[in-house]
Amino acid sequence: MANSKYEYVKSFEVEDKLMPSTWIVLRIDGRHFHQFSDKHEFKKPNDERALELMNACAEAMFEEFPDLVFSYGVSDEYSFVFKKTTEFYNRRSSKIVSITVSFFTSFYVMKWKDFFPDKDLKSIPSFDARTVCYPSTKIVRDYLAWRQKNFDLHLLGKGVFIPMDYKLATAFSFVGHINNQYNTCFWKLIESGKTKSEAQDRLKGTQTQDKNEILFQLGVNYSDLPAIFRKGSCVFKDKVEEIVKYNENGQPVKRSRNKVITDHCDIIGDKFWKDHASILEDE
Amino acid sequence: MANSKYEYVKSFEVEDKLMPSTWIVLRIDGRHFHQFSDKHEFKKPNDERALELMNACAEAMFEEFPDLVFSYGVSDEYSFVFKKTTEFYNRRSSKIVSITVSFFTSFYVMKWKDFFPDKDLKSIPSFDARTVCYPSTKIVRDYLAWRQKNFDLHLLGKGVFIPMDYKLATAFSFVGHINNQYNTCFWKLIESGKTKSEAQDRLKGTQTQDKNEILFQLGVNYSDLPAIFRKGSCVFKDKVEEIVKYNENGQPVKRSRNKVITDHCDIIGDKFWKDHASILEDE
Amino acid sequence: MANSKYEYVKSFEVEDKLMPSTWIVLRIDGRHFHQFSDKHEFKKPNDERALELMNACAEAMFEEFPDLVFSYGVSDEYSFVFKKTTEFYNRRSSKIVSITVSFFTSFYVMKWKDFFPDKDLKSIPSFDARTVCYPSTKIVRDYLAWRQKNFDLHLLGKGVFIPMDYKLATAFSFVGHINNQYNTCFWKLIESGKTKSEAQDRLKGTQTQDKNEILFQLGVNYSDLPAIFRKGSCVFKDKVEEIVKYNENGQPVKRSRNKVITDHCDIIGDKFWKDHASILEDE
Amino acid sequence: MANSKYEYVKSFEVEDKLMPSTWIVLRIDGRHFHQFSDKHEFKKPNDERALELMNACAEAMFEEFPDLVFSYGVSDEYSFVFKKTTEFYNRRSSKIVSITVSFFTSFYVMKWKDFFPDKDLKSIPSFDARTVCYPSTKIVRDYLAWRQKNFDLHLLGKGVFIPMDYKLATAFSFVGHINNQYNTCFWKLIESGKTKSEAQDRLKGTQTQDKNEILFQLGVNYSDLPAIFRKGSCVFKDKVEEIVKYNENGQPVKRSRNKVITDHCDIIGDKFWKDHASILEDE
Repeated sequence: MANSKYEYVKSFEVEDKLMPSTWIVLRIDGRHFHQFSDKHEFKKPNDERALELMNACAEAMFEEFPDLVFSYGVSDEYSFVFKKTTEFYNRRSSKIVSITVSFFTSFYVMKWKDFFPDKDLKSIPSFDARTVCYPSTKIVRDYLAWRQKNFDLHLLGKGVFIPMDYKLATAFSFVGHINNQYNTCFWKLIESGKTKSEAQDRLKGTQTQDKNEILFQLGVNYSDLPAIFRKGSCVFKDKVEEIVKYNENGQPVKRSRNKVITDHCDIIGDKFWKDHASILEDE
Repeated sequence: MANSKYEYVKSFEVEDKLMPSTWIVLRIDGRHFHQFSDKHEFKKPNDERALELMNACAEAMFEEFPDLVFSYGVSDEYSFVFKKTTEFYNRRSSKIVSITVSFFTSFYVMKWKDFFPDKDLKSIPSFDARTVCYPSTKIVRDYLAWRQKNFDLHLLGKGVFIPMDYKLATAFSFVGHINNQYNTCFWKLIESGKTKSEAQDRLKGTQTQDKNEILFQLGVNYSDLPAIFRKGSCVFKDKVEEIVKYNENGQPVKRSRNKVITDHCDIIGDKFWKDHASILEDE
Repeated sequence: MANSKYEYVKSFEVEDKLMPSTWIVLRIDGRHFHQFSDKHEFKKPNDERALELMNACAEAMFEEFPDLVFSYGVSDEYSFVFKKTTEFYNRRSSKIVSITVSFFTSFYVMKWKDFFPDKDLKSIPSFDARTVCYPSTKIVRDYLAWRQKNFDLHLLGKGVFIPMDYKLATAFSFVGHINNQYNTCFWKLIESGKTKSEAQDRLKGTQTQDKNEILFQLGVNYSDLPAIFRKGSCVFKDKVEEIVKYNENGQPVKRSRNKVITDHCDIIGDKFWKDHASILEDE
Repeated sequence: MANSKYEYVKSFEVEDKLMPSTWIVLRIDGRHFHQFSDKHEFKKPNDERALELMNACAEAMFEEFPDLVFSYGVSDEYSFVFKKTTEFYNRRSSKIVSITVSFFTSFYVMKWKDFFPDKDLKSIPSFDARTVCYPSTKIVRDYLAWRQKNFDLHLLGKGVFIPMDYKLATAFSFVGHINNQYNTCFWKLIESGKTKSEAQDRLKGTQTQDKNEILFQLGVNYSDLPAIFRKGSCVFKDKVEEIVKYNENGQPVKRSRNKVITDHCDIIGDKFWKDHASILEDE
């Protein structure tokens, strides 16, 4: 009656525990979001509703998984940082990857209509995910800087939901002629009625100043673009002081609690991390 | 301008390629489906609509991922077998796990209303997933037998969406007093108005015959239950012959093609595998 | 008093169990053996005593580790095949790698004087090692064919203890102008008094026939070279029938037992494996 | 002619790169050294020559592998710490494990006669090895403290070359009745002519004071034992200032260089690490 005859198949399972005392970074990426963004007619280069749906998913992740401390999202990707001491699912990589990406996806589909009340889902959105461990705070900050820098160089202008694949991005990073400004220009020219190849021709050989001039002519001031387009989004937990009540003397009684905050900050420089020192502190 | 200063963080990524020339089994499990089934008032021990939604997800997987050859599902779990030679995402485990569970979840949420038109989703369904590799056909068949046997012994009766967790199931497998019949009895008694502890008391010490008698009094014949409840579900690709047209002599012109089939079979014995020899053939 | 305060460091150990039911191949390679063979004045292209010391080490491995079934050695490398069902050190890769390479090295140093009574060890011989798993008999045979073919193409002629490093060998495999015959020629020319560049010049542009002619003039018939030089060495366990005693009627009483055999065979074709079918049989 | 038909077998090799920016600890352990120490009649509980041979091997490792920064040895085990930034063999675990254990073993056999001129090797000494990574200096220090503490509690007294196996040691660590003092007593009683069971009986129920009294009667003062017996051995690289020459004014000209030092220190407390701050510094 027992199942013991077949139990041996369990011996083929492989332990995939992530190294203790390291920061676990989980990166979720849209799968085939180039097509997905076309099919659902996302605005290029940035579709604010699509970005806000991603941010809502990230916020929900913080409600569901208490060991998350920080996340950074741009376009169709989101990186989540678990605290160094987390014992979430015993640090088993498959469990962490599958449960989080499944939750993220579920929320994305459930909330779609809240952000796109006028659009039905025409295809099945899905995401991939992976974990990477980083042994020190310095390196996890470099990881986050890498994602923001990468975005800054390549991704924004390619359309929020048309990220280059990694190899292409890497190739371009050597060539170095693609950046935000280029792409913002590119898409503004498209918007103004140019074809893709006309826009490319117009931009060929232009310098920073030339492109600013083009943007100016098109009525755009790059630095006036909303921060969400220029910086991506951070969702994180931070300690905030709240007034709970007033005592008999009319003095406020405060309490500090962790609150989930969404913002669009520079996370490459030191300022953000000094202002929010508790996020990556070592405990 | 280049991103090279931070590129080094990529060196922390770990290769997780699964061994070539082995069968990759992916198992997807509902997360917190005990609560989920309570919240959505699934019928105990079996909710046909809930099972059919799972099956629909499995069928969609076969449409999306052409290297799948077989799957077996029961309760809130589904095991998928990729062909031995698959190069799906270069056999990278994180990619396979995340993309499939994300797709499965997405489809589950999108199709919910087709199966439960009268019920809104009250919580966020999510699944975990893992991969295991098996080096031979014999062992992958033993894996599938293990899942069906396990189900047969423990899970069905606990309510389709109330699977025991593994440890509990293992514990019971030694005790051995829990099985389909017990659970079918248990839930029928509940249905007839008993409380859980009354039902337990009524069944204490009963033998197979006693339980059959109870079921009979409640108007149930266990072997008359639908196969989906007794056997779980198989979704697989099989070669079928189809008549494409009739030629000038009125003779049928046939063509063989792979068709996705859903059935409820015994996959422990040899018969099924002899009848469908192409599924696990070694190429 | 207890050590529990520090015990947590054990949680950083990583499980490295090799997949069950697969053939474990262990490959041991000389480290810096180019220098080592120069320093100990090994004969080029082949030093018979050096090869025989390697074979003696392989034979000792078979005495020490009963789950070995076959091994193939050439130059300063040796590949060992463990039976598919071995539970040697629980199939933990680090244990297998370290224990075997340590034993092999120990034996090499201890037996050095038996093979080189006239030479002291002038530097510290050491080896590296790795494990690879193969899921089927066909693939493990292809692995062994790969080692013998590789040798045949590139290694022999480069001097038994001057194997090319892998990258170089790969590069040459595309160029394809290096092989046994070339190298045998090359070293024979050196032996006859030519410098290395004179020998290279002499061979430039020669065809098979030209080289045979050169060898013939130098008094060498390639196919007359000892098999150990042309084929490498196999050490394996095989069933042999032995006469234990004679019974009262004078009839021999036989017993079959496993005996360790060293030979120099072609292991690319089928013949050897048909003649020794029990070696890689699946149990 | 090319080898490409079989090259595919290389795709079964698994990448085993250790996480960058972490301390790599390599632990080498004698295999079957209980028997080995018996066969070669090592003194119990401590054989000074055997320990010194181990230390000589450790010193040779520092000459051979420049990225080693610290090592700690006791009985038949030795732990080596590679610097955090090492790129030794690309941080591939199999390479590191095999090359180091092979070198260590080779040196052990080659130098045997220097330490035991009166004894031939009667069996083949071998060692196992493994790597573990630690993400921070604190944890690598805890690892080293764990080895010294473990030794202090259990191993010394069991005879330098009769370490308990790990499970036994762990079991005892809860019971807590075995320690250095106990074992020193035990072996002194053996030395004085008692049998093993007589010695055990004599020590049953004794307290610290009683055992000191026994040792005193046997003419032993535990704290007078050489540090190598009480503390184990550290081999490490440290910066030392050396006088290179004297200048024209007769003033010494100094230079700092890395020197390999062997000592027997407490490495659990802070003092050693403060005095040698450069060893584990983060660069």
